[in-house]
Amino acid sequence: MSIGTLVLLRHGESEWNALNLFTGWVDVQLTDKGVAEGKRAGQLLKEHDLLPDVLYTSLLRRAINTANIALDAADRHWIPVVRDWRLNERHYGALQGKNKAQTKAEFGEEQFMLWRRSYDTPPPPIEAGSEYSQDGDPRYAALDDAPLTECLLDVVKRLIPYWEDTISKELLAGRNVLVAAHGNSLRALVKHLDGISDEDIAGLNIPTGIPLRYDLDENLVPLNPGGTYLDPEAAAAGAAAVANQGAK
Amino acid sequence: MSIGTLVLLRHGESEWNALNLFTGWVDVQLTDKGVAEGKRAGQLLKEHDLLPDVLYTSLLRRAINTANIALDAADRHWIPVVRDWRLNERHYGALQGKNKAQTKAEFGEEQFMLWRRSYDTPPPPIEAGSEYSQDGDPRYAALDDAPLTECLLDVVKRLIPYWEDTISKELLAGRNVLVAAHGNSLRALVKHLDGISDEDIAGLNIPTGIPLRYDLDENLVPLNPGGTYLDPEAAAAGAAAVANQGAK
Repeated sequence: MSIGTLVLLRHGESEWNALNLFTGWVDVQLTDKGVAEGKRAGQLLKEHDLLPDVLYTSLLRRAINTANIALDAADRHWIPVVRDWRLNERHYGALQGKNKAQTKAEFGEEQFMLWRRSYDTPPPPIEAGSEYSQDGDPRYAALDDAPLTECLLDVVKRLIPYWEDTISKELLAGRNVLVAAHGNSLRALVKHLDGISDEDIAGLNIPTGIPLRYDLDENLVPLNPGGTYLDPEAAAAGAAAVANQGAK
Repeated sequence: MSIGTLVLLRHGESEWNALNLFTGWVDVQLTDKGVAEGKRAGQLLKEHDLLPDVLYTSLLRRAINTANIALDAADRHWIPVVRDWRLNERHYGALQGKNKAQTKAEFGEEQFMLWRRSYDTPPPPIEAGSEYSQDGDPRYAALDDAPLTECLLDVVKRLIPYWEDTISKELLAGRNVLVAAHGNSLRALVKHLDGISDEDIAGLNIPTGIPLRYDLDENLVPLNPGGTYLDPEAAAAGAAAVANQGAK
C-alpha cells in the first residue's frame, strides 16, 4: 500500500479578503472571484489526475464552499467529507472585522506585523457581545474552551494533534486527502510538515484557491519539501499579494 | 431525549428534469431554477426553525448540491454529512437518457406507466457500454452487485435496511436529520414510514425542492401521516407536475 497524496487548498477569495478585513472565525461568503477560483482548483485537480478520496474542511463556509465547488468541477463531489473546527482559520481576536490597512495606520507597522505574523503573540481577545464574536454559535457550543483570540502557535496546538489522529491516518491508509482550509491553518500544517522554524514561518504566505500537492514518505516527511503548486505562476503572484495585504 | 425531526428534500430541478428525460443514476447538474429551489428550501428550513444536525445524501450531484445550497442558506453548511448510494435515485435501466414523452409515444401509455410506477416491474437493464451506464464509475467500484435497472421494490430493499441502520438511529438519538435525495428513493422511504400499500404508492408524487417534515413517535411512526410540506401550495403544484411528466 503506497501512501496517499495530500492536497492543501486555501479557500477562494472571500468578501472580506476583497475588503481587506481581518476575518478569522467570522463566517463570510466567497466572492464571485472566489467561486471561480474554486472551480479552477477543481479543474486543476482533474487535469493533474489528482483525485481526492476524502475531504477535510473547517466549519467555515468559505472553505466548505470552495471545496464543494472544486470537487464538483473534479467530478469528486460524492467523496466522504469531514468537517472540524480545528481546521478553522486562526481566531483573530479583537481584530476580527477591522480593516488591515487602517489597523496598520492606527497601530504602526511593527505592531501590525506582530499581530499578523508573530508566532506566539495573539491579538487582544474579542470582547463578549461583539458583533464579530462567535458567542452562541451552535457549531462551537460543544467546545469547552472556544478561543477568543489565537496566535499561530495556538493554531499549531489545536491542529497538529488533529492531523495526527485523523488526516495522517487516512494518508497512511493509502487515501488521497484534500484539506480545504485557511491561510493560517494551512501555514500551521505546512510548518509542521516541512519543519519550518518559528521565525521562518513568518515569511511563508499561501495564496487562495491553488491546490498545493505534498508527496510524503512513510514517516510523513515531504518528498517535495514546500510542496508543489498545481499552478506555480499563479501561486507566486498570489503569495506576493497575501504578503502585501497591509499596503492597500 | 425527544426524537429528532426528519426532513426530506427532493433535489431541485435538474438539467434532465427540464428536458423531460429519464435520469436515474446519470449524474446531471441542477438548472438555475434548481439552484434557486435549493436556496428557497434552505430559507424555508430557517423560517420554520427546522435546523438539521446531520445531512444524508445520495452520491448524485443534484442531491448533493441541492443540500449544499440549502444548508448554506439555512446557516447549517457546517453540519456533518453522510453520502451513500442507497439514497440514489432508482436506476432506470435502459430508459436512462430517454425522453419521457417519446417513450410514452413509442411504447404506449400502459407500458410507460408500468415502467414509471409499477412497484415490482423494472425497465430492461441498461446495456454495458451505454453512454448512460455507470460502468467504471469509481463511486460504485466497491459494490459487488451494482444495479443495471431497478423497480421501486428494489429501491425499498436497498434503502430500508440503510434507514434502519443509520438515519433512524440518528433520529432516535435526538438529532434532526435532513435527507436530500430523489423522487423514487424518497417515495420508497415515505412508503415505509406511512405504511402505504404496493398499489397506492403509484399515486404518490414528490415535488422538487420543497422540504417535507415528518414528526415521528418513538416507534418511528409519523405523528403527521404523509408529512407536512413547508410550502404546501407549491408542493401541490409540484406534485401535479411530476404526475403529468409523460404529457409534454
